Amino acid sequence: MARHRDNLLTKFPSIDQLKSEPEGHALAYAWRRLDACEADVRAWAYLPTKRPGLDLAPREGPLAGIPFGVKDVIHVAGMPTQCGSQIPPSGAAPMNAASVELLVRAGAIPIGKTVTAEYAFRQPGPTRNPANLQHTPGGSSSGSAAAVAAGMVPFALSTQTGGSIIRPAAYCGATAFKPSFGLLSRDGLKLTCESLDVIGWHAADMTWLQACAEVLIPNAAPPSPVHLRGANIAIIDFSSEETASDEASAVLQDAVRTLHQLGATCQRIDARAHLTALSQAHAIIMKYEFARNLQPVVARDSTQLSPALLENVRQGWNIAHAEYRDMRALQRTLRASWATFTENADFILSHSAAGAAPAGHVFTGAPAFNKCWSVLGWPCLHLPVRLSHHGLPLGVQLIGKFEQDFDLITYGTQLESQLTGGANQ
Amino acid sequence: MARHRDNLLTKFPSIDQLKSEPEGHALAYAWRRLDACEADVRAWAYLPTKRPGLDLAPREGPLAGIPFGVKDVIHVAGMPTQCGSQIPPSGAAPMNAASVELLVRAGAIPIGKTVTAEYAFRQPGPTRNPANLQHTPGGSSSGSAAAVAAGMVPFALSTQTGGSIIRPAAYCGATAFKPSFGLLSRDGLKLTCESLDVIGWHAADMTWLQACAEVLIPNAAPPSPVHLRGANIAIIDFSSEETASDEASAVLQDAVRTLHQLGATCQRIDARAHLTALSQAHAIIMKYEFARNLQPVVARDSTQLSPALLENVRQGWNIAHAEYRDMRALQRTLRASWATFTENADFILSHSAAGAAPAGHVFTGAPAFNKCWSVLGWPCLHLPVRLSHHGLPLGVQLIGKFEQDFDLITYGTQLESQLTGGANQ
Repeated sequence: MARHRDNLLTKFPSIDQLKSEPEGHALAYAWRRLDACEADVRAWAYLPTKRPGLDLAPREGPLAGIPFGVKDVIHVAGMPTQCGSQIPPSGAAPMNAASVELLVRAGAIPIGKTVTAEYAFRQPGPTRNPANLQHTPGGSSSGSAAAVAAGMVPFALSTQTGGSIIRPAAYCGATAFKPSFGLLSRDGLKLTCESLDVIGWHAADMTWLQACAEVLIPNAAPPSPVHLRGANIAIIDFSSEETASDEASAVLQDAVRTLHQLGATCQRIDARAHLTALSQAHAIIMKYEFARNLQPVVARDSTQLSPALLENVRQGWNIAHAEYRDMRALQRTLRASWATFTENADFILSHSAAGAAPAGHVFTGAPAFNKCWSVLGWPCLHLPVRLSHHGLPLGVQLIGKFEQDFDLITYGTQLESQLTGGANQ
Repeated sequence: MARHRDNLLTKFPSIDQLKSEPEGHALAYAWRRLDACEADVRAWAYLPTKRPGLDLAPREGPLAGIPFGVKDVIHVAGMPTQCGSQIPPSGAAPMNAASVELLVRAGAIPIGKTVTAEYAFRQPGPTRNPANLQHTPGGSSSGSAAAVAAGMVPFALSTQTGGSIIRPAAYCGATAFKPSFGLLSRDGLKLTCESLDVIGWHAADMTWLQACAEVLIPNAAPPSPVHLRGANIAIIDFSSEETASDEASAVLQDAVRTLHQLGATCQRIDARAHLTALSQAHAIIMKYEFARNLQPVVARDSTQLSPALLENVRQGWNIAHAEYRDMRALQRTLRASWATFTENADFILSHSAAGAAPAGHVFTGAPAFNKCWSVLGWPCLHLPVRLSHHGLPLGVQLIGKFEQDFDLITYGTQLESQLTGGANQ
């Protein structure tokens, strides 16, 4: 991706670059970027007063000495979990979440908690888009996307219920991955919607993204990798739900052209008639479960919660159980019918968002291009491609088959090198 | 159930009985039973120094002023969550779990945390069977089952991954319910196995059990209730997995006879060929997910964990991801094939356990009659029927159709009155 003069986008050094650097370089680099950008970007909800050193994790392992961020709805031992709310945290978490622990076991060092929209919903935190501070970073995983895009960490854990990983990745220009539903443990996560919540991660490039995947979903890569040459790709028409900007559409067209050149076959699928049911299931399941899971927070101190959150809880309580149960059944049906509907495709290509990050910091953007995959529980990957005329990131989304996450990552890696001319430039 | 002279089994006053008592009677009754039995039964892992009063919950609501217990793997605001381990707790939970909050909203008062086997696995806590202190209460929800069976509380929250609700209910002589997988939020629960863990409850009788269900799964009861007359019941033959004792088989036979008299049709189903796959899926999913979710605990202080737990974690790490993924796929397949296999039955009747509670306190019993339903995620209900010749509780298990939880509860209520001559005697 081309650098824009007056933005803060920088890629963290690649895994290859770090190999020729002394131990501790990654951590030192992170502190330098934090010192340079954090006052402007505000990606972090919590950073320990004493900066963690190399002694915090094993010195061996595939991620030894690598700093990372954790969305502030996931526990990190010794740090508070505030969930982006104004309710004061009650002490530090005693243990890492299971996902954090897998990274720590691999030698990585959690350096702080990244900003989340209030309880991973809608009310934004203070984070600003590192490509242009006047624009939203997207949400709810605002801090993870912005910290990675500004080069402060090579990766950060995030969560998605609607579009909370992929959309901020698109807006900030980070690479990102939402695994298949259920592949990654949610131990240590503040649940908001149990049938939808997924832990994923933002990463500086596909190499970092894959390194995380190998630690977080261990020994899952298939023995023989897939290839874009000969692959069948479905292009989903979302126009019934949301219209993408001309610039976003041009980026998608370029990606299609590149895929053709690489020997893949792209075919448009008219899914408009099938999208309504997905949207409907998402809305009902999300609201019903959110109300149930946020009730303890409302009980603790509702005066500290945003009107938007309280209204969503109120709406959720008014949903009849039978309607919720029907939508859960519809979710199961849709998982099967969409698998049939897209069975000839090796993956799906679509917009990640309707366009570049909107100006302002009130609205974190719409999840129209994301929530359908959250309902289906399929893996999603965002690849940043280039900057818009206004210097804002644009990219594409790849959606894989359920539980074939490493195939999607392989396709993403092959496409990244062609779309951007290499991971680090 | 007939009273045995030298046991501590007592039913908490019924909802009907409490109606004629003054406000605060339920709480006062709980303290009396606690003072009388807890030194022997040891059902509680934590009781606040200052006993909670009526001011802890709303004075209105279907459960106003009713004390209850919470298995010590589920958060209660202001109380530590120790998960039955020797690792010292790190302060009190800041908020109730979503399930606890629903009960508190309905006016119920959480009076303490009940004993769990270490991290809801195998290593037993100090609890003893209130029917005979020399016998195990079963596990892992030992304290919830024992506290309810000894009449200290009318209900208590519990969890099941294999047979951790139904088996201790059977051993202690409590009524109990494990809802359909996914119906009840697991927010605020220490996850051990995300594809299996379910929050349920032990209750003094079916009336209490149903009152909890109406609060925890609100507005879910179908408009027209089912009837045992004309119902089709499948009796599952488990002899390939486990042989039940003669006494347990006699209780099941009596239940079949009663159901016939009530106008239901009971038909034996030979499921032996189908049980192996369920057991296999349960074992692999359980170990794989347990290892992943217990790793943060192991990292915190492995010296405080039992050899059995550490060995289970070790085995879980050695399971290949592909095998786990295959077993998750098998779980989905089995959910569909078992629905077809049992489609003519309105519910299934089976043993809850192989027999009465074994003597001693080392082994909490085998989940052979329970884990298949945990894999399928179907609702299960235990009904105590009578005491064995040795004064130990025996009963039967009813298994319902997925997400038709209130139908199962209705069948259970109708059968209870015939099997035991009424809930409170």
